[in-house]
Amino acid sequence: MSDRPIGVFDSGLGGLTVLKEIVKILPNENIVYFGDTARVPYGPRSKETVTKYTFQAINFLRTKNVKAIVIACNTATARALEEAQDKYDIPILGVIEAGARTAVYSTKNKVVGIIGTEGTISSNAYNLEIGKLDKSIKIVSKACPLFVPIVEEGWSNTDVARLTAKRYLEELKDEGIDSLVLGCTHYPILKRTIGEEVGEAIKLVNPAKETAEDLKKVLEKSNIINDNNSVSAKYEYYVSDIHEKFSSIAKEFLKKDIEEIQKIEIQKY
Amino acid sequence: MSDRPIGVFDSGLGGLTVLKEIVKILPNENIVYFGDTARVPYGPRSKETVTKYTFQAINFLRTKNVKAIVIACNTATARALEEAQDKYDIPILGVIEAGARTAVYSTKNKVVGIIGTEGTISSNAYNLEIGKLDKSIKIVSKACPLFVPIVEEGWSNTDVARLTAKRYLEELKDEGIDSLVLGCTHYPILKRTIGEEVGEAIKLVNPAKETAEDLKKVLEKSNIINDNNSVSAKYEYYVSDIHEKFSSIAKEFLKKDIEEIQKIEIQKY
Repeated sequence: MSDRPIGVFDSGLGGLTVLKEIVKILPNENIVYFGDTARVPYGPRSKETVTKYTFQAINFLRTKNVKAIVIACNTATARALEEAQDKYDIPILGVIEAGARTAVYSTKNKVVGIIGTEGTISSNAYNLEIGKLDKSIKIVSKACPLFVPIVEEGWSNTDVARLTAKRYLEELKDEGIDSLVLGCTHYPILKRTIGEEVGEAIKLVNPAKETAEDLKKVLEKSNIINDNNSVSAKYEYYVSDIHEKFSSIAKEFLKKDIEEIQKIEIQKY
Repeated sequence: MSDRPIGVFDSGLGGLTVLKEIVKILPNENIVYFGDTARVPYGPRSKETVTKYTFQAINFLRTKNVKAIVIACNTATARALEEAQDKYDIPILGVIEAGARTAVYSTKNKVVGIIGTEGTISSNAYNLEIGKLDKSIKIVSKACPLFVPIVEEGWSNTDVARLTAKRYLEELKDEGIDSLVLGCTHYPILKRTIGEEVGEAIKLVNPAKETAEDLKKVLEKSNIINDNNSVSAKYEYYVSDIHEKFSSIAKEFLKKDIEEIQKIEIQKY
């Protein structure tokens, strides 16, 4: 059981930042990644559609015999995680709960900032999760629609990224946040630029990292963690559409080249 | 017949820049606008899906008794204009042909730049239209994915817009273009910023303006132009989803407030 792979799923390539964190703390685990690049973004789609797409992704990952799945997509987590957990009999984790929990632990002054795509921010998913844990926390949220295309252009450490971060984050700083949740899987790539803009007093919360830690706990608890370090872990990458920019974006996210990427017909699953 | 409205359709709100040009040169015409804001963007969707959505938009506009339709959306024009012209018995115009034709007239050195969304650029729609008119023209095209969110943030005349334009357009300038097609309905809002970046020697081609002129010719030819200037023209706005930012974006596009906007269930048409 323990050498079966972990499945990681995102609407696009942002989930690779989550994969990267999993590789860091679970280096023996084999991983199968699926990015639904033909149907990205999920943000503007209905709950019904996102649930259908999420089930298709899970069905595909199960053909790879995965032992657990991480939904590395804020929209899919917000709209379909519970249904997926009800439907399937393997552990399925999202990215929002871990991020919310860490923000609650992190804040001292109980003022937390959340940044994400328009879809994630308008869903109030982080607000709901944080509210479950501590109702006294004030949440200041802000959609930052330029950040995803900035990352995808490979512009994360440019003047454009810095000025954009300044415009988006000024308001959050003025509200006195002491913790800032990077509520989109693309944003960890901008961590340095965002960190320089908000300053050291504001702690950046990366849900990808916390999700990887949650995954480790789940695998340990179920006794299905892979502790065999005598063979190299295997990583497989699948997408529903291959874009021109795939390799450069993947490299930006993973800080390494991906040797092989396979296209699948996701609507068949 | 002549007081029947013109229908203008876009996947979102960018088509309002086309509406604005129509109002300028056809001030007596009543107009019904439909923006498919629940299903924007069309770029990543298949030809089949875009055609279905376009037909639904046209079916809706026909319930308003329109006498002609402008598809003010580059993706829908590229993927569904011909099918729509075959299916319906009223004049239907797209934005690409007019833009391509104007670029061909405009260029002296036969090097033309095209900028647009990833979807429009990868479709090669402008290249195909320009090629039909003059095969000797060299086309340099560039997807500019940051421009749409910059416009939608209301940042068109900011440092972020200027630096982004500089990064995107440098390569086109280096290639020696003398004309640049603004191949996305959002881009006319950036006209000043783009113009300052490329300089006066490069002529900006706004397909919205040329499409409005084409429409005037079609109405004149069919003898259905509205020349009654004794009553004010009526403008109606419909969308499939009302976003928070709708009013501010619409104001940026039209340079005036929209009094009333109605939401419709587009999938019923």
